[in-house]
Amino acid sequence: MTTTYDGRRRVVIEGVYPEINAGRFPIKRTVGERVVVEADVFADGHDVLDGVLMYRREGATDWHESRLQPLGNDRWRGAFTVTELGRYEYSLEAWIARFATWQRDFSKKADAGQDIPVELQIGAELIEAASERADGRDRKALQRWAASLRDESTTQAERVATALDDELSAVVGQYPDRTFATRYSQSLPVVVDRERARFSAWYELFPRSCSSVPGQHATLNDCESWLPYVADMGFDVLYLPPIHPIGTTHRKGPNNAPTAGPNDPGSPWAIGSSEGGHTSVHPELGTLDDFRQLVQRAKDHGLDVALDVAFQCSPDHPWVKEHPEWFRTRPDGTIQYAENPPKKYEDIYPINFDTDDWESLWAELRRVFEFWIAQGVTIFRVDNPHTKPFPFWEWLIGEVKAEHPDVIFLAEAFTRPKVMYRLAKLGFTQSYTYFAWRNARWELEEYLRELTQTEIIEYFRPNFWPNTPDILTEYLQTGGRPAFIARFVLASTLAASYGIYGPAFELGERTPREPGSEEYLNSEKYEIRDWDLDAPQGLQPLIARINEIRRANAALQSNASLRFHPVDNDRLICYSKQSDDGANTIVVVVNLDPHHTQAGVVDLQLDVLGIDADRPYQVHDLLSEARYTWHGGPNYVELDPNVVPAHVFRVRRRVRSERDFEYYV
Amino acid sequence: MTTTYDGRRRVVIEGVYPEINAGRFPIKRTVGERVVVEADVFADGHDVLDGVLMYRREGATDWHESRLQPLGNDRWRGAFTVTELGRYEYSLEAWIARFATWQRDFSKKADAGQDIPVELQIGAELIEAASERADGRDRKALQRWAASLRDESTTQAERVATALDDELSAVVGQYPDRTFATRYSQSLPVVVDRERARFSAWYELFPRSCSSVPGQHATLNDCESWLPYVADMGFDVLYLPPIHPIGTTHRKGPNNAPTAGPNDPGSPWAIGSSEGGHTSVHPELGTLDDFRQLVQRAKDHGLDVALDVAFQCSPDHPWVKEHPEWFRTRPDGTIQYAENPPKKYEDIYPINFDTDDWESLWAELRRVFEFWIAQGVTIFRVDNPHTKPFPFWEWLIGEVKAEHPDVIFLAEAFTRPKVMYRLAKLGFTQSYTYFAWRNARWELEEYLRELTQTEIIEYFRPNFWPNTPDILTEYLQTGGRPAFIARFVLASTLAASYGIYGPAFELGERTPREPGSEEYLNSEKYEIRDWDLDAPQGLQPLIARINEIRRANAALQSNASLRFHPVDNDRLICYSKQSDDGANTIVVVVNLDPHHTQAGVVDLQLDVLGIDADRPYQVHDLLSEARYTWHGGPNYVELDPNVVPAHVFRVRRRVRSERDFEYYV
Repeated sequence: MTTTYDGRRRVVIEGVYPEINAGRFPIKRTVGERVVVEADVFADGHDVLDGVLMYRREGATDWHESRLQPLGNDRWRGAFTVTELGRYEYSLEAWIARFATWQRDFSKKADAGQDIPVELQIGAELIEAASERADGRDRKALQRWAASLRDESTTQAERVATALDDELSAVVGQYPDRTFATRYSQSLPVVVDRERARFSAWYELFPRSCSSVPGQHATLNDCESWLPYVADMGFDVLYLPPIHPIGTTHRKGPNNAPTAGPNDPGSPWAIGSSEGGHTSVHPELGTLDDFRQLVQRAKDHGLDVALDVAFQCSPDHPWVKEHPEWFRTRPDGTIQYAENPPKKYEDIYPINFDTDDWESLWAELRRVFEFWIAQGVTIFRVDNPHTKPFPFWEWLIGEVKAEHPDVIFLAEAFTRPKVMYRLAKLGFTQSYTYFAWRNARWELEEYLRELTQTEIIEYFRPNFWPNTPDILTEYLQTGGRPAFIARFVLASTLAASYGIYGPAFELGERTPREPGSEEYLNSEKYEIRDWDLDAPQGLQPLIARINEIRRANAALQSNASLRFHPVDNDRLICYSKQSDDGANTIVVVVNLDPHHTQAGVVDLQLDVLGIDADRPYQVHDLLSEARYTWHGGPNYVELDPNVVPAHVFRVRRRVRSERDFEYYV
Repeated sequence: MTTTYDGRRRVVIEGVYPEINAGRFPIKRTVGERVVVEADVFADGHDVLDGVLMYRREGATDWHESRLQPLGNDRWRGAFTVTELGRYEYSLEAWIARFATWQRDFSKKADAGQDIPVELQIGAELIEAASERADGRDRKALQRWAASLRDESTTQAERVATALDDELSAVVGQYPDRTFATRYSQSLPVVVDRERARFSAWYELFPRSCSSVPGQHATLNDCESWLPYVADMGFDVLYLPPIHPIGTTHRKGPNNAPTAGPNDPGSPWAIGSSEGGHTSVHPELGTLDDFRQLVQRAKDHGLDVALDVAFQCSPDHPWVKEHPEWFRTRPDGTIQYAENPPKKYEDIYPINFDTDDWESLWAELRRVFEFWIAQGVTIFRVDNPHTKPFPFWEWLIGEVKAEHPDVIFLAEAFTRPKVMYRLAKLGFTQSYTYFAWRNARWELEEYLRELTQTEIIEYFRPNFWPNTPDILTEYLQTGGRPAFIARFVLASTLAASYGIYGPAFELGERTPREPGSEEYLNSEKYEIRDWDLDAPQGLQPLIARINEIRRANAALQSNASLRFHPVDNDRLICYSKQSDDGANTIVVVVNLDPHHTQAGVVDLQLDVLGIDADRPYQVHDLLSEARYTWHGGPNYVELDPNVVPAHVFRVRRRVRSERDFEYYV
């Protein structure tokens, strides 16, 4: 009747954080990051407890242990650092610390002058029990301590002092009796990625527009000549829309025209033709060898090439003939094209994941990833993952990362929040967000708090894009150059990972296809564009400077420390980030109004930033190089959008004052 | 490789509420209550979903089902009513609703005037598939509908109308294809208690003080004569401190004196003597037959007798001789007495639950409960459960309630919050709380919000005691009669279950043993008291009236609807409760200042209360019988503590106005 219990296992461990869906999903970290774990740990009665956070590489036999520290109110904390790519797991164990309990009570009795020889005997017994669990020097030392407690030739005061000795406490604490320790019921997983999973600057580029000859379809070789341009701006990921053969059936013309002219190149997302499918290179772009060479040259510039994986087919895709069972057939024998009723997308056949043949379908889709990984690709931007089953992604990402733990998957899911978060939980490394449509201060603050100050931060890594080939927001359309700068500063300093679709972005391209549309006029999705990279007013210098600032300031390389600070003008937003060690603090102020100068008083919460409220500190604008000496929390700022609508301050604390000189670090 | 997945099982169910520790612990309900369950339910893509909440008695084979309703943002809700004592379980299942998806898309295509004969065929196929899952009339009806959709002799408009027919939707919805439905991973438990577990008024009484002869030790027979008194005040639980033989070794004298005189009765919590232990009746109180008779007579007055179970022993308890291994022996051979260093409680031996013989110990302790249940007891107040192991309580309560689901356990655990909540999770039906020490408005509001507006309400049922034999708060000591009234109104209207230690409470006993102490002077714990129930200024009429109000107003019989309303004077507190059906609304205003009249404007949030802001409503003070017509949220109140420091308003909405008469219900 009592077999499922052991009455002597008295410690409870619950309320563990982080723990996603009761341990069903991993948290995410990058190599070198800490995992800080908290839990409620308590027992009946008043005994002193002790415990450890346990962790290991998934599959390893032995656990490492890190001692839990009490935080008060039965909350405990432990931490470890992940040092290798791949998967870790952690759990907790806690137990009654009998000797520490005895010491606590003994000390009170001794203080009260109670008669304590029997108490000393109890203490000696506990030390002797510990000595039996110890080896070598510790064992001998413990035996000596026990003997001292029993040594009636010494004064009681001496024996009390020995019994309460800190070194004795520490040594006994190393040899706890864990016979009836409680192990937490779950082992909780961690996925460890490389740093770029957390901190990255993406640049999206249509390679077919890279030709130096206006109007000519560029090749991957042409694209290579752009690598210095992208690298000089400080990006580290070069993301290419699909590079596969493009279908001709129902090919779209410029501006999404229902029919294409003979020279229209079509949309790269209408994948597949008689020339191949998802593992082929569009002949007009070049060969697989050209692609491998581009990947290698990009690496030489510090750039990872990210490929777009869009699991959908043009009617001309080889899979349509080879695997008609992977598509939905209508009663009239035709294959169901994509639709968002009443809209039809007849150039696209969606894959039917409900097919009975789903296992071979999954295997083939996995092969697509493996194929490109074999060509040197380690980053994939996945198109519309929310229209494919969740189990597929969990399986696919799990399988791929088991062999290639350095691979990064960015989810392009603009859908309902719970679906986006689920995709992140089941494996996507980074995720697109609603950032593009969050413009007012309250919207930004509310959304960023959700992303950074809730459990979501443990598994969802936001990648902020102010524009994409599909998204030219009204704010960019109407706000002119200041809007582009403001949105760029916000994206690149609010989020450790961000991206732009260029050169449309840095050249300030902002004409929509029609009023009210978020589509670009003459979108590169349907035609080849010529870009004048030397056009005046380009944002390249600002972008390069911001990327330089991001690299030099650890504060901007992760999101957990993000905090918003009050400003008495709601067109100004103010926030800070800090490095884990607190040594690097960045404060950003952005004027969200692209049309007017806005001024106000920002109120830095100095306690949050660890700044001494009684001493001046310096804020150094890394964009303008201006330096201001501030005192206390509230300080005046004024930003003219036509100069630059943002401050990116590095906070420098005064380290010493000597005659007329002050030094700040 | 893909064996753990089915690629076609596409729906996700997560974020289920209520769910305690990932389903490890049950939620609590009483017979007739509803269980409302919410969950995030979603799939990839844009298909319409459908699902059910499933529930059954634990151990039953078949599930009942209740349809889930969408709330927006991928949140769904279902509900069921528990009708029997014992344990239930619930889970969820959801699936893609293919026909509903088809109807939604078909309707848009039809509206857009698209050519739809192939669509109609798809619809007909889906209806035919449903017909194969249906029987009898529905099967035939579905076949007819499918045929209509295929009938090209009718106009397209007619076929569209048929396809979108509401009755067709409903019938198809009854026969879903659940082949690839997702079942939630957990089955979540519910413990169903009787109503008294949720709604109860307790009266604690020392039976030895019940004699009509001053100074004489009363018997259980004497105690019977008090039953009309307790019942007339409207209580429904009569709780007796331990009725067992009291030890003589180290017996405490009056006011906890270290030694007792020859006629001192000792503390009832020093359990056990040569006359017996936890299953014996103290001879001075009477016999087991007398006890059974008391229980029966109490029942005749509508009173359940609650027994105190304190698992600790006087040194004279039979267990000490029979089972020395159940106690901790010190190196000098003595048994360890209770202590809170440096304090010693030498009249008490704590039980050592760490004993290797814990299984027989547990069995014996269980026997104690079974013994008293056999005498007719169904309510136990458990003394200091937090000093006994959690697994013991979970096992014990589980075992007892499996056979006696009507039994109620009240946890007397005044300890850290997480320990108190854990005890409730693992089975205690009701719990003592920090109420006695929450006096300021903000303290009461914060604590009550924690108890009623978080997950805690699902498993922790507070029982509010303004006093106990151990707790005479400073507020009661110094606040006079108004303080007693205020605390009584708060306890009995904030919490659906409350109790008082009487007659000390209703007679306003308020002298502490010494200044700064919460102990009563001449505490009944150590001596027999004579109580003059006819003393002037007794609170009996008020108590009786409040208990009458509690019984007549469903709003006061549960806690989930509790809401606080702003008052511009923080010595006044205002809150409301409402019955589940919204028909009964109680608004309480209490003056927390026992010394001065306080006035202010309370601001009822009429939307919360479902009151039309544009029409007058009546508040009927059930204590004074005064009626006021109020308009809108803000209304003036003034409470003189020397008259009565509280309003208990029933809100009456005007149902009609006819000439000069207004009617309120």
